[in-house]
Formats: sequence, structure tokens, C-alpha cells
Amino acid sequence: VLSMTAQVLQIIRRAGSPLSKAEIATQTGISLSAVSDHIERLLVQNIIVASNIGVSSGGRKPKQYSLNAGFGCILSVEMGTAHAQVALTDFDCRILFMKTSSIRIDEGPEAVLNHIYTMVKQLMEDNGIEKVSVKGIGMGIPGPVEFSTGRPISPPIMPGWDGYPIKSFWSAFFECPCYVDNDVNNMALGEYSKGLSFGTNNMIYVKVGTGIGSGLIYDGRLYRGATGGAGDIGHFDVGSPVMCWCGNKGCLEAAAGGKAIVTKAQEMALAGKSEYLLQIVQEKGTVGVEHIEAGLLRLDPVSIELVRESGSAIGRVLAAIVNFSNPSLISIGGRVSEFGDLFLAAIRQSVYHRSLPLATRNLVINKSVLGSSAGVIGGAFMTIDQLIIQATDEKVETFPI
Amino acid sequence: VLSMTAQVLQIIRRAGSPLSKAEIATQTGISLSAVSDHIERLLVQNIIVASNIGVSSGGRKPKQYSLNAGFGCILSVEMGTAHAQVALTDFDCRILFMKTSSIRIDEGPEAVLNHIYTMVKQLMEDNGIEKVSVKGIGMGIPGPVEFSTGRPISPPIMPGWDGYPIKSFWSAFFECPCYVDNDVNNMALGEYSKGLSFGTNNMIYVKVGTGIGSGLIYDGRLYRGATGGAGDIGHFDVGSPVMCWCGNKGCLEAAAGGKAIVTKAQEMALAGKSEYLLQIVQEKGTVGVEHIEAGLLRLDPVSIELVRESGSAIGRVLAAIVNFSNPSLISIGGRVSEFGDLFLAAIRQSVYHRSLPLATRNLVINKSVLGSSAGVIGGAFMTIDQLIIQATDEKVETFPI
Repeated sequence: VLSMTAQVLQIIRRAGSPLSKAEIATQTGISLSAVSDHIERLLVQNIIVASNIGVSSGGRKPKQYSLNAGFGCILSVEMGTAHAQVALTDFDCRILFMKTSSIRIDEGPEAVLNHIYTMVKQLMEDNGIEKVSVKGIGMGIPGPVEFSTGRPISPPIMPGWDGYPIKSFWSAFFECPCYVDNDVNNMALGEYSKGLSFGTNNMIYVKVGTGIGSGLIYDGRLYRGATGGAGDIGHFDVGSPVMCWCGNKGCLEAAAGGKAIVTKAQEMALAGKSEYLLQIVQEKGTVGVEHIEAGLLRLDPVSIELVRESGSAIGRVLAAIVNFSNPSLISIGGRVSEFGDLFLAAIRQSVYHRSLPLATRNLVINKSVLGSSAGVIGGAFMTIDQLIIQATDEKVETFPI
Repeated sequence: VLSMTAQVLQIIRRAGSPLSKAEIATQTGISLSAVSDHIERLLVQNIIVASNIGVSSGGRKPKQYSLNAGFGCILSVEMGTAHAQVALTDFDCRILFMKTSSIRIDEGPEAVLNHIYTMVKQLMEDNGIEKVSVKGIGMGIPGPVEFSTGRPISPPIMPGWDGYPIKSFWSAFFECPCYVDNDVNNMALGEYSKGLSFGTNNMIYVKVGTGIGSGLIYDGRLYRGATGGAGDIGHFDVGSPVMCWCGNKGCLEAAAGGKAIVTKAQEMALAGKSEYLLQIVQEKGTVGVEHIEAGLLRLDPVSIELVRESGSAIGRVLAAIVNFSNPSLISIGGRVSEFGDLFLAAIRQSVYHRSLPLATRNLVINKSVLGSSAGVIGGAFMTIDQLIIQATDEKVETFPI
């Protein structure tokens, strides 16, 4: 349970606009005089700021309070299998500075994290950011995480990372706390809090990249499941004959992920089904998602067919998820989502065909608006959430700890 | 947001054992002196009671507080398509008196609700319960519900009930508030709060009756979805050729529900595959689930095969749900769950075969312990929850409103 001061801070932070003491009292159930005490404490800490722009109800205008976005920086790191993004954000999760670099996750935690730390140091130096300004570190990784400890749990595509103490790595360089979550959870939280949320409280964010995963916002909160594994849709059976790395056949990921698309494209190129793709194979040696994307623009029939098939398979799984979870928004992100309208249309068609009418009555299915920034933005949001919660856990009534 | 008094009441109510003021202060983040004020207010209302059985830490033993189970009665009604259960419970959701009767839901809301009201009146008269003792009414119905208004929304197996104002029906007879939810949601809440919960916060309750549905407890709270439709697993595609009432082929419900089992049993009896079942058809004209159950005990191969096939299909869908929702407990209830070990074993086998190892690491799959009482117990729990919330919404600091 949050301390009262932390509850007041959360209400202020999550509101879209500045709040008066009376509004805070109404929304928390705390008495007006107690709200004043908490506000005073937060003002002294400089974590909130006051403004006088409230609407007057006759007398002088009431003061309003909002988060001090400039309170400090959050270091947010989004790690994929082949790329890492490093961002410094303010306390409103706006990206101040960002840097991207190639990595190879199978080089293991020491090598990869040292490389990322070098990026961080460079980004901070280039922009004159002192370590003391960084109040928290948030990281997203492409595998299941035990959130309380920040350790990867048997991550299938991160060889060498199982159980690695990522938090300890960062604490050698920074004094502030570090939090680690699954990458798609961070993306879902980013899209929910700062992206396309339509005021909805029930949202599923689907990342279609090399693999396929999802992050779940239920009743306004990120749902991680009993052991941090919630949102796995990659292994739903779509009846395809392809063998998946998990040992089963028919998995969605093996049929419709980015890797599946390029593998099939290569096969069809070599089978002489597409001149365009054959030329790519001959010139580059291999087909990448960027070539499929270009193929769509050139109206290459095989590229179009593969993307439509992928969207259709994803839609069949989402149809079941829609019946089961009854969200009001599905946000589609990840590299493959950038294929655009054709891909989205195939997903929608499949969902509306197969879901129950009641479940789709008010359902919106859209492309993520934060794009490739969803992860770092959500990582920063998650980190600030945790800083507030941790202040309570350690029985400290002040923020930051 | 709950008022502070209501928050204190919820903490006391949900604790398994009496709490001291200090424990309440720790769990709510409210100061000890404020806790004392709230406790005083609740004691005056008689909704909590004090005891002196706490462990002394040197001085006199601290007083402890618990819910006054005898504060009043809840009227809890569980309505199926063919039966209705009417129960009076205390404030600890224990069933004091119960009555069951046959109904025909397709006779429409007026006829059915009047019949149920007659049952209620009889039950109260027989046991000397006055109307004034009934503090709230909770009802579960076999279809989607808009929870805020208590109206059924396009319920597929309740002809004539769409949009019917069930709350208004009850308010003609009782002055206390009435709340209506989907039947499986009530069962899930019952099993979670008073049944087999192992201290878990993430549970899925699956009802296998004529149809198949589920209720979801995520992070300790019932999840209803954006429009009250969450938990629908009956229309997951299991690849069967049977047409479902929803217009699609392959739905789980059409392949593995109680109705599907007896339909197939009858076909196989007439095809001469089972002497036992043929005899039933000749004697009774039709096969019921009770005959399949008896067939299991007599080792009738067709009954065994049908039950195993049903469990296996349900397990395939639950495997996907386990990956996606990562629960720590799946509780199986409903009439078909009473088929026993063979049915449960088929479900487990399918789930462990197809789910990711990480998701099943600590997963328990068990039969519901509340059995056919889960719905009325959960309906009472839901009602008390809402009484507490409503006391806040209407800005009343006292309970009951």
C-alpha cells in the first residue's frame, strides 16, 4: 500500500492537467487538511510545482499542482536482440536525448551491458548530464523477467542471461535504483500512458517484430501474471505445419513473425514465385523485412500475400484474445507493424470475422502512435511508478528516497 | 476511490483473521490516530466487532477488530438456464439458508423473476428472516451484463432478457441495493475469496456446464473487461467441424460442453457404439450428463472417450490461456467438472503438453471446492464489496448507507 503522500503524488502525476487541493481530496478520499500537509511535503521536495491558473469560483483563484517534469532525469534502456536504445527522459517521460546502437544479445550480459553503459556515458557527456541528475534507471529486455528482482527467467532468446543480476550491474555505476521488466510490458505501459489510449483502461499492446508478444493493461494497471509471463501470444496454435523453437508445431510466432515472413519470402524467391525477391536474394544473399516493405510499394504479389497471411494469422489469435480479455483498444507496434495499412486491414478483418459481436462493439484496433519510442517512454513511466512505490515500501514519507 | 473509513473496513473484511489498529495502519498507510477515528465510526455502526485476544507485547493485550458477520443478511440469487438457487448468507458469505428450483429462462424476465421472488419469500418466511435484515441483493445470470446498470447485454441464451432492468424488479420488493453480474464472475469471486485460493492473486475459474465460460481474478481483483465480456473461452477455435450457435465452426463450447457431450453420446448410441448408452436412449428417450457420469463408473468405453475428448479440447484452449494470462491457479467447476479424475487428468495433460514450461512452473489445476455453491457465495461477496463502494460514491462516511 502506498503512503498517503505517495498516493497524492500518484494522483497528481497521472492527471492530465494540474489539480487543486479540493480535486485531490475528492479523488483520494483524504481530508482537505491532510491533503495540504502532503502537498506541502511534496513542494518542499520540489517534486511538484504550484500554479495559479485555476478557475476562480468567486474568490481568489485556487492554486493547482502538477508534477515537476524537470525534477530530474530517468535513464531508460530498451534492449532488443540486435539493437539497444538508450534515452534520457524528464519526469513527464518526454525523451530529452536518445542514442541507438547495434548489439548482439548472444554475446551475453557482461559484454552487452558494458557496451550499453558506454553508450549511456557518451550520451550523458555529449549533453552535459551529471550522474546526480539521474533519479532512476529503467530497462526493458526481450524475455520474461522476475520483476521484483529484475532477473531474466529462462529467457529463450537471450543465451547466457538466465538469472543475471542486471540491477547489480547498474548499481556499480549509479546510486539510483534500477528496475527491469519485459520489453513489451514497457511498450504497453508507454502506449497506455503517453500514446494512443483514448481514455481506455483496458488495452492490449501487440509487438510484431522478429517474434510476437503482447503487453496487457487491465483496469488501468499493467498485468504481469503470476510469474511475469503474461501476454505471451506467440505460441497460440494457428494450425501451421512449421516447427517452432518451443518444440510445438503451429505456433503463431513461427507462422507470422518477422522471421517467419522473411524465411518464407526467401523460399518463394528461390522457387521462382517472385522476380523481385529473387533479385534481392541474388544481390544481397538474403531477404530482410525492409525488402518485404519495399515489395509492398512495388506491388510484388508475393510480398503482399505474405504480409496479408501474417496479419490474418495474428488476427485469428487476437480474435480469441478479444473474446477472452474484452479490451477496448488493441495497439499494434513492432517493426512489422510499419508495413502499414495492408497489414492492419488483414488483422482487423480476421478479428471482426471471428470475435463475438459484443466484444468488438466498441473495439478499436490501431497502429501504435509512439512507434519505436514506446519502449523507452514506458520504461521511464514504469521507473517513476516504482520510485514512488519504493519510497513507501521503505517507510520513507519523502520523495525521492 | 474509497473513503478512508471504507478502506479500513475493506482491510478488516479481507483479512483472514482479526487485525489490531497498528496492523491496519501499516496496511493502509493511514496514521494510527486516524485509524482510531475510523474504527470508532465502524464500531458505532456495528459493522465491525472488537475482541481482546491479541498477543501482548508486554503491556495489556491490543484490541483486535473483525467484521461483524451477523450484521445482516445478503440475498444471493444464482440463475441458470434451467435452475435457480436462492440463498441467504451472513456478512462472512456463509450460507444460512438455501433453496433450489427448476426454471425455464426462456419464459422471460417477468415470469422467471416472479417465480424466484416467490422462492425468496418462502425461504424468508420459513426461517423467520425479516426484510429489514436483508442489506443487499446479489444476482448472477448466465450472460453478459453491463455491471454498472445490472442489465443483460444481448445475452445469447436468455431470449427476452436483453436490457431488462433487473435491479428495478427487486427494488419493488426490497429497499436495499441490488447488483447483477455474470454468473461465472460470481463463481470466480466465490472460489477466490472463500474457496480454493492458495493465497494466489491470479486465478482463472472455468465453468464447464451446458456451455463453457470463465471468470478472471487478476492481481486480486475480478476483471470484467471493457464491456463486461471478459472470460469468454467458449468460442476459441479447437478445429472441430461442429457448427456453433455463434455462426462459426470449431468453437470449444460446441465441441466440449455438456450439451456437445450428450449430443455425441446419443449419436454414438444410435450408431451402435455403446450398448449401455443405447439402452438409456431406448428407456429414457434421451441421454443426460448423469448417464455419462454413470457410464464412467460402469467403464462404458464411449462415455470414457467422450469425457476424455472434452477434457482434452478444454485443456488445449487453457494451454493458450495459461501462456497468455500466466495464472497460478485454474479452478474447474460446473456440472461437467463433477465427472471427476478422468476429466481433470485429460485437462491437465493437455495444458502441460502445450503451455510454455515457465508458465506452468507453479501452476495448480484443481476442481472447485465450493462446487455448486460457488455462485451464491461469490454473489454475496460481490454484493458486500459494492455496498462498501457505494457508501463512498454517495459521499456517505458511514456504513451502511
